[in-house]
Amino acid sequence: MRLARIAHAGGVAFASIEGEGDAAQVLEIAEHPFGNPNYTGKRWPLADVRLLAPILPSKVIAVGRNYAAHAAEFGNEVPTSPMIFLKPSTSVIGPNAAIKLPAASEQVDYEGELAVVIGQPIRNVPASRAASVILGYTVANDVSARDFQRADGQWGRAKGFDTFCPLGPWIETALDPSDLALRTELNGEVKQDSRTSLLIHKIPELVEFISGVMTLLPGDVILTGTPAGVGPITDGQQVSITIEGIGTLTNPAQTA
Amino acid sequence: MRLARIAHAGGVAFASIEGEGDAAQVLEIAEHPFGNPNYTGKRWPLADVRLLAPILPSKVIAVGRNYAAHAAEFGNEVPTSPMIFLKPSTSVIGPNAAIKLPAASEQVDYEGELAVVIGQPIRNVPASRAASVILGYTVANDVSARDFQRADGQWGRAKGFDTFCPLGPWIETALDPSDLALRTELNGEVKQDSRTSLLIHKIPELVEFISGVMTLLPGDVILTGTPAGVGPITDGQQVSITIEGIGTLTNPAQTA
Repeated sequence: MRLARIAHAGGVAFASIEGEGDAAQVLEIAEHPFGNPNYTGKRWPLADVRLLAPILPSKVIAVGRNYAAHAAEFGNEVPTSPMIFLKPSTSVIGPNAAIKLPAASEQVDYEGELAVVIGQPIRNVPASRAASVILGYTVANDVSARDFQRADGQWGRAKGFDTFCPLGPWIETALDPSDLALRTELNGEVKQDSRTSLLIHKIPELVEFISGVMTLLPGDVILTGTPAGVGPITDGQQVSITIEGIGTLTNPAQTA
Repeated sequence: MRLARIAHAGGVAFASIEGEGDAAQVLEIAEHPFGNPNYTGKRWPLADVRLLAPILPSKVIAVGRNYAAHAAEFGNEVPTSPMIFLKPSTSVIGPNAAIKLPAASEQVDYEGELAVVIGQPIRNVPASRAASVILGYTVANDVSARDFQRADGQWGRAKGFDTFCPLGPWIETALDPSDLALRTELNGEVKQDSRTSLLIHKIPELVEFISGVMTLLPGDVILTGTPAGVGPITDGQQVSITIEGIGTLTNPAQTA
């Protein structure tokens, strides 16, 4: 199932998406999408609604240096344990919303990533049970002010600006995430082209590791790391990240 | 005014505290404490309720190396810009709740800090207006697994465990935070003894800097940094942090 959050003429709601292309329909969900969602009976053509970030997480946990080729492009070692950091919930935006480039930063980079959406409150979940606590998967852009990242040591500023966590276009709940193509295009030019099979710390291990540190709540999001090919995005450019079996997350960038 | 969150026989509520010592009374607030709170008319002696974390923040932004003597005790330079990182909202606990020491960590340290509680949704607030957007001040313990902090590079794990952000005992709304005594005692022995006047990046500057990065929401908390004297807390020990004009935050530690 494809779960989305939508803005329609009457307000904002969770929804599921059925069908493909011009025939795609959006079915409004009552309340929230966890467990077995109830439907209101309202539906629209996909083209008649606006897609929002498919979830508003209480927290976003990101994993650094989780593809060897990306760690190498900055001269970093691959960490033996997952290196985790947080992005603020206020950094989340949806598809087609603008990434606002801070005036003070000289280099803001895109980072295409597979994102895991947690489906229930969890703590200390072993890798063997990880799949059962995951609601689904979406596409993320771990936008990063690279100059601040280098200067600060901790990444709270560099990766914490409002709009620096695009998520979407929707959450795919029925998907094997272990070997999906991930491709990032900047104004149509392919910049990242990799596969999730190259993740160093795999999703079940990440769920075990992170839930061993902190309670994860329904809707919390894990960004699994970016492959090689990151680079700057500038005012007026558009970044599109496509993950096989999910879809494409596109966001323009503009000076804040 | 002293703002608290309480558990009483009938549930959980925000409250204000009037009077001192044995005469202290707790007045229940309807809904939330922002703006001009409304009272329900219910009141109890302070001793008859349990104090919870005085706020449940959507995010906790912490500032690293913000006292020169603390930066020096680990051989670090003082950063020219505030070095910010996030603690997850799931790490927050209240007064007297146990800090759970992760079995995998060999050294968990206390870090006494002055905490700022934001009173309204803000973005890009200049230092000159910072005081007007602050709800008040409380005491925080930026509990840190020092071995993981050294090993990981990013501090998401080391500072993100459940129970690693004690807050309380209440929020003092009428307070000049610029020169307050801060004292941390471990089992009654003084370990940290400093003053907030020694903050390198002062509170108005922190509000301007952080709100220039991310939107802050009502209840969001800024931990302003810890002075020298941090050290380990072990199973069965008790850490008490006292800030002049606010009060004392006490938490025991126990093996998780």
